[in-house]
Amino acid sequence: MTQRYPLMVIGTVAVDAVETPFGKQNEVFGGSASYFSYAASFFTPVELVAVVGEDFPSEYRKVLLERPIGLDHLEVLPGGKTFRWKGKYESDLNVAHTLETHLNVLLTFKPKLKTTVNPQYLFLANIDPELQEEVLNQIKRPACKLVACDTMNFWIGKKRSDLLKVLKRVDLLVVNDGETRELTQEHNLIKAAKIIQEMGPATVVIKKGEHGVLLFSESQFFALPAYPLEEVFDPTGAGDSFAGGMMGYLAKENRSDFETLKQAVAYGSVIASFTVERFGLERLRKLTNLEIEERLSDFKRICHF
Amino acid sequence: MTQRYPLMVIGTVAVDAVETPFGKQNEVFGGSASYFSYAASFFTPVELVAVVGEDFPSEYRKVLLERPIGLDHLEVLPGGKTFRWKGKYESDLNVAHTLETHLNVLLTFKPKLKTTVNPQYLFLANIDPELQEEVLNQIKRPACKLVACDTMNFWIGKKRSDLLKVLKRVDLLVVNDGETRELTQEHNLIKAAKIIQEMGPATVVIKKGEHGVLLFSESQFFALPAYPLEEVFDPTGAGDSFAGGMMGYLAKENRSDFETLKQAVAYGSVIASFTVERFGLERLRKLTNLEIEERLSDFKRICHF
Repeated sequence: MTQRYPLMVIGTVAVDAVETPFGKQNEVFGGSASYFSYAASFFTPVELVAVVGEDFPSEYRKVLLERPIGLDHLEVLPGGKTFRWKGKYESDLNVAHTLETHLNVLLTFKPKLKTTVNPQYLFLANIDPELQEEVLNQIKRPACKLVACDTMNFWIGKKRSDLLKVLKRVDLLVVNDGETRELTQEHNLIKAAKIIQEMGPATVVIKKGEHGVLLFSESQFFALPAYPLEEVFDPTGAGDSFAGGMMGYLAKENRSDFETLKQAVAYGSVIASFTVERFGLERLRKLTNLEIEERLSDFKRICHF
Repeated sequence: MTQRYPLMVIGTVAVDAVETPFGKQNEVFGGSASYFSYAASFFTPVELVAVVGEDFPSEYRKVLLERPIGLDHLEVLPGGKTFRWKGKYESDLNVAHTLETHLNVLLTFKPKLKTTVNPQYLFLANIDPELQEEVLNQIKRPACKLVACDTMNFWIGKKRSDLLKVLKRVDLLVVNDGETRELTQEHNLIKAAKIIQEMGPATVVIKKGEHGVLLFSESQFFALPAYPLEEVFDPTGAGDSFAGGMMGYLAKENRSDFETLKQAVAYGSVIASFTVERFGLERLRKLTNLEIEERLSDFKRICHF
């Protein structure tokens, strides 16, 4: 029973409104935990810890139930409204401009894990570091073998000390290049990764969007370009899907040595490359494991010399 | 006799003054053809076509003669002054600010090839496209199997039609990402490469600095991250060294199929990673073929999964 979900994620479940150069869509099912868990589910069952309001559409719940995603910890706050985010991407698609954020149910969220759960792999998706810590406090170590986390500029700027407390207790940090530089005040990403390692996480994964990913462990290094795409339709959720694919693969393999981490980062990149082909979860909902394996093979051909 | 130098480069030979966050140096031996030929010489003998003034220091000539670099076409203009460039890099080292340019002998340069030369591989390094065309007109095709060229923003902006005439006649273009976007008015580099291919060159190599290199042929694609460096001391000449390593390897192998191009791009990246460790040609002058092979092995370990 406690083994059913070897991977757990805490993060946001949201209703997004997204505008890209290719189109505009309101009422898009989004949120860091939604993208993460959907992506991870191609590799392993995953338990989702999040909060929504009473307005949370039943069809979104059905989307999650298409996959082996556990919803026992998807709390519905009576009378509450689901978190909403509205964003817009410029023509180069690299930077999202947040137009509106309505935290709603997130304002009072206190994640409470059932005593029966005991994930071996835990991902603290992008959310207030105080909530990340709350979950960390309820997890049994060393039964939980690997804790990874994500964050964003907002928390680096506004809740730095809370974030640093979390970082001390995690094994792996996933951040993008801009966040890395903001967190460390160091421009060179190789030096910056070492600074982050001193903050806690032995493994650091730096996402560089169209330029790929860098992976640092205590003494090893891996660099991967991005899977080449002519059209990035909507970059929303790319980072969360990447993390979902990566953590899903680690949980499936049930190991996190450097060779496995390399494969995991490659799978994460492949999943993210599918996510951005359509709005929201549209592309992942049609994705098959065969397509994932085919793109991974193609990716190897592109990177190896 | 005509086979002695299978590779030829036309470009600049310069005296630079360079300022980086790590130091400042005047009277640095530089120029696109100098970096190119020194880098290429680790793989193949190379003939240098360029012009200098009477002030060209004899010790710079000796530097070139340390390697199998042919200087029969290094013209010395009587009474002329050597081309000078002064530049400064900001803390992120990505953009060079040109502080001064003194074209001097370049203003009247008309490259004239001896009838005996007949390179199989030709590189038109960054220089006025009119001079690139001048050399193209003196080369015998198809005896010259592969013509590659480089350019820069200045020529894209000021001599676009001359540049387009050159592009129609070359097999391979090496450009950085910013130049690619300026030349094509397309932000997505994969689409941009296709636009460049329609301009002429069947093969396009896009340099992205710290983010690596993309290689496009008619139907194939290759992506390589940059070799990871904690300290980039002076980026001057990185692009020219990259091109030198790449073309030197192609000339040595005497083939340019896609697998060979992939290796060539990797060797180019390795040579460039050494160049930027010191000012000017300092690092390359101490470089050994063993170090190149060791770093290439290391590079494979970093990229393969």
